[in-house]
Amino acid sequence: MSSDFKISGVVPPVVVPMAEDGSIDREAYEKHLNRMIDAGIDGLFFLGSSGEVAFSTDERRREIIEIGMEINQGRLPVLAGCIDMQTNRVIEHARAMEQLGVDAIVATAPFYAIPGPGVIANHFRAIHEAVDLPLFAYDIPVCVNTKLGWQELAMLGAEGTLAGVKDSSGDDVSFRFLVRENDRNGHPMSLLTGHEVVVDGAYLAGADGSVPGLANIDPVSYVKMWKAYQAGDWAQVKAIQDYLADLMLITQVTVGVGGYGAGVGAFKTALKEMGIFNTNRMPSPVDALEGENVEAIHSVLVDAGLI
Amino acid sequence: MSSDFKISGVVPPVVVPMAEDGSIDREAYEKHLNRMIDAGIDGLFFLGSSGEVAFSTDERRREIIEIGMEINQGRLPVLAGCIDMQTNRVIEHARAMEQLGVDAIVATAPFYAIPGPGVIANHFRAIHEAVDLPLFAYDIPVCVNTKLGWQELAMLGAEGTLAGVKDSSGDDVSFRFLVRENDRNGHPMSLLTGHEVVVDGAYLAGADGSVPGLANIDPVSYVKMWKAYQAGDWAQVKAIQDYLADLMLITQVTVGVGGYGAGVGAFKTALKEMGIFNTNRMPSPVDALEGENVEAIHSVLVDAGLI
Amino acid sequence: MSSDFKISGVVPPVVVPMAEDGSIDREAYEKHLNRMIDAGIDGLFFLGSSGEVAFSTDERRREIIEIGMEINQGRLPVLAGCIDMQTNRVIEHARAMEQLGVDAIVATAPFYAIPGPGVIANHFRAIHEAVDLPLFAYDIPVCVNTKLGWQELAMLGAEGTLAGVKDSSGDDVSFRFLVRENDRNGHPMSLLTGHEVVVDGAYLAGADGSVPGLANIDPVSYVKMWKAYQAGDWAQVKAIQDYLADLMLITQVTVGVGGYGAGVGAFKTALKEMGIFNTNRMPSPVDALEGENVEAIHSVLVDAGLI
Amino acid sequence: MSSDFKISGVVPPVVVPMAEDGSIDREAYEKHLNRMIDAGIDGLFFLGSSGEVAFSTDERRREIIEIGMEINQGRLPVLAGCIDMQTNRVIEHARAMEQLGVDAIVATAPFYAIPGPGVIANHFRAIHEAVDLPLFAYDIPVCVNTKLGWQELAMLGAEGTLAGVKDSSGDDVSFRFLVRENDRNGHPMSLLTGHEVVVDGAYLAGADGSVPGLANIDPVSYVKMWKAYQAGDWAQVKAIQDYLADLMLITQVTVGVGGYGAGVGAFKTALKEMGIFNTNRMPSPVDALEGENVEAIHSVLVDAGLI
Repeated sequence: MSSDFKISGVVPPVVVPMAEDGSIDREAYEKHLNRMIDAGIDGLFFLGSSGEVAFSTDERRREIIEIGMEINQGRLPVLAGCIDMQTNRVIEHARAMEQLGVDAIVATAPFYAIPGPGVIANHFRAIHEAVDLPLFAYDIPVCVNTKLGWQELAMLGAEGTLAGVKDSSGDDVSFRFLVRENDRNGHPMSLLTGHEVVVDGAYLAGADGSVPGLANIDPVSYVKMWKAYQAGDWAQVKAIQDYLADLMLITQVTVGVGGYGAGVGAFKTALKEMGIFNTNRMPSPVDALEGENVEAIHSVLVDAGLI
Repeated sequence: MSSDFKISGVVPPVVVPMAEDGSIDREAYEKHLNRMIDAGIDGLFFLGSSGEVAFSTDERRREIIEIGMEINQGRLPVLAGCIDMQTNRVIEHARAMEQLGVDAIVATAPFYAIPGPGVIANHFRAIHEAVDLPLFAYDIPVCVNTKLGWQELAMLGAEGTLAGVKDSSGDDVSFRFLVRENDRNGHPMSLLTGHEVVVDGAYLAGADGSVPGLANIDPVSYVKMWKAYQAGDWAQVKAIQDYLADLMLITQVTVGVGGYGAGVGAFKTALKEMGIFNTNRMPSPVDALEGENVEAIHSVLVDAGLI
Repeated sequence: MSSDFKISGVVPPVVVPMAEDGSIDREAYEKHLNRMIDAGIDGLFFLGSSGEVAFSTDERRREIIEIGMEINQGRLPVLAGCIDMQTNRVIEHARAMEQLGVDAIVATAPFYAIPGPGVIANHFRAIHEAVDLPLFAYDIPVCVNTKLGWQELAMLGAEGTLAGVKDSSGDDVSFRFLVRENDRNGHPMSLLTGHEVVVDGAYLAGADGSVPGLANIDPVSYVKMWKAYQAGDWAQVKAIQDYLADLMLITQVTVGVGGYGAGVGAFKTALKEMGIFNTNRMPSPVDALEGENVEAIHSVLVDAGLI
Repeated sequence: MSSDFKISGVVPPVVVPMAEDGSIDREAYEKHLNRMIDAGIDGLFFLGSSGEVAFSTDERRREIIEIGMEINQGRLPVLAGCIDMQTNRVIEHARAMEQLGVDAIVATAPFYAIPGPGVIANHFRAIHEAVDLPLFAYDIPVCVNTKLGWQELAMLGAEGTLAGVKDSSGDDVSFRFLVRENDRNGHPMSLLTGHEVVVDGAYLAGADGSVPGLANIDPVSYVKMWKAYQAGDWAQVKAIQDYLADLMLITQVTVGVGGYGAGVGAFKTALKEMGIFNTNRMPSPVDALEGENVEAIHSVLVDAGLI
């Protein structure tokens, strides 16, 4: 009854490069994806929160997937975010993704209109029934204002509605309860953490993998950390995570900015400074980082040995 | 420089009737709109938060507008909600609405991705530049998690970006500051309150009109209240608002439900009990109210003399 | 069964003047209270949120009341805030206030530890049983993180636990429902609004009076507004409230500050600029406003004709 | 310049047993503290959030410390919570604790009145200057509504204001940044995690110890986990944490309750079921758990092998 789709390891949420005119920078996209795939990652998550999903029209979403899949050439499984306010709109995205041939889809709790009791389970069941693809729940209360309860997630996994969870809730207590309950249920779901700074703790807790935005910057280290975990070498896991926590300071050293512009803005700026992206352009109406903020990020990259 | 479009009076956010199969119930829609227009309302706001916008696919949104405008036959100005996560997606809705011939559009702060400093002004300016229609800001933090600042709104009105504001923030202090500043700026914007229970206070504060969900149930009383206000008869204004506050208890007497299902669910149930809607069906995955909750609403309607 | 204590009209939450050494400035205190009493206010609310309650030791709280009551000489009823985290601590304050001879006490929902179902009603009942003084509920979610439900407040009034409510919730919809239900119950409670910028709307809604922090700055206008309301002269009510809304800009024109330092800091600065306070010193560790922020406030006072 | 006081290992926040009449149950208190001390814990944290601090009068706070210290007989270092709204009130508690002879004090961000920029650093500095005891910052936004920033905490540690941090923020990303910065500063602060369900991850991150409420129930396992961590046996650390996560379900299996009554209520009920406490009485106005909720907790304890 439960999903056959399993995924583990490192599955970066792909940050998308833009040309100065706002179009997708195909050359940089190719360089970026190939660099991550060559590093040994285990899957690609397109159209996540840091993958421009909220800023992209349906047409642009399709483009991000199509070009991404052309570059991928089936080397890795592809997960695609189907992010929209309520069930019927999510299902439309899901059907579009199904036609494009992705391997799994990812949906959040309904948002904008507040869900009453029972609505969240109905929501995921309706998506699951509508589309013949493994479905991941995306737990991201900072974006959708609702925390998915671990009991409800575990139940939806046990009944076969959910193939997994991408946890970006920041609530590691709830995540631990979810991991334990999912194990008691026979491990029907793949449970992935989205918190790139504490992936080591999530692995210790029993996460099946990670979806670290920072793996766009340093995929090699996230792959090494995963392998160290598989080998039971916790001293190595911790050492790599400590290094990556320091690298994540690219998102903390800027001033006068905030929200998406500070977070994904730092990722794009780092990728430009490292020569992988040609611009650090952000989707309208967000401004690209500039001046001293770029220098501060550059300095963190130098400290990390990435430049 | 500022917008020429002015609107005042009562502009209900239209609740949409569904048939049992989930399609729009055209007959009920006609009865419902004509009833409100005959009552003397001053405009129609389609695709607001209580107008199913978050639950409707692009196709369904178009249908709601098209049928609504067919029924309206140009009798009243039409405002259309262009609700989506970020600027580019909002602009697509706005262009679709422009083609359908609406009179003005309504957009919220960007949501899902958190806006940093300066992003909100950029957002409304980009929409305004893209579409040649009067633009209203929809201030609804409970849905989008951001409160629009009164200083920023007033500035956007003075510069001609915004034609008005629909305030559903529940922050009457901020609304008062906005009204005062808009007056100091020469009243470039039409300022409408969305809080059906305290419209009298908003009129006293200087609101140009109201967008009361409850006017779907009792449009006549909201029109009477507006006329009493125009006549300076505050005792009458207050008396009508008191009656309408008691009628609004339809949203407070239910148990075991919450969010959209309790709020808009009560409106649809009342309209069915009054014989205007044929069903109280809600958009998937929200359940319609039933049993004792329907009886409790029925009882409020009897107390109000509407049944 | 319900409380016999009734209060109506204008009841300012008293802002407390400090000498440069941090002690209470007795001379300024006297000038300040006499000025408000002479203006015709109807009661004094000491130890409210803007009355230094959170910053004052038990000894200082006693001093604020004792000196205040000495100055008052029984001219007006005295309400005293008994603000603390949980019931037993509140009761201790309440007993101290009882010994000092205040006329009524004011308590918030329990805070710091999160109240579960039923705890809030138990809390007010326990205070009411412990102390033989009229008890007001202080609804101030911005400070205590809990919104008091109107149904529960109305019930506590009907049963005689509460003598009234001081509403600083900013939720005018809930306040309207409370006023209506309190009327249906025979008006056992005195309902006061704390929102100085929209007192006119609250009067229209049926408030029994107001607790406006801004009345520390301009008590005469709040008294005039109350009298205009009593006379049914709504045009006058509105005109005065508009003037007072503009005066409230003293709290909006500062930059680089926030929270208590910006709000009460603006009140103290205004009182100093007007020659009533000798300093604008704030309780440790909050800094007094200075430089351009003082000038900005000064300028608002000049515009208002108060300087 | 920085504090000499260091603490590491397991420091339970002591849950306080009450007799049926509401007084402290001295016999149970002795049994409880000795059981934890005998298990090998490293310190005692009295008057934490789960240690009745918000519910206790000053007199009761003193009693909790005095009796606790009598039982302790100097065997372990004693930390005492000095929890109150603003600086001056906190300092009074701190001075009382100093007289009672505790080894260190613990204070939160100021609450009730909202802190503006700079206020938090001023707050901790004022407490540090007033009292000659090592000072721990207690980061607990769920109670005080403010998250302490890791940069500010690290700075306050480096300058010698803070001796450590007790992190109950649930924000493990921020905690990781804090640990890293504290290390770069030469490790002036002892950093303790308060999240009993993910202590293993905090140890991996570099925490100096833990303050687990659940150690009241099973101190032996938390001590074993600490020793396994010291020995670098991560498989054992994880296994013990998994067992303890399952034990923590005592706080998740109840229904119809919430907040303090559900959390600390479950701890007290477990201690009673295990024969350590004589009652599961809660401080007024919180009700003790009963009936099926007690049975559900009992069942978790049986599964854990503790009964």
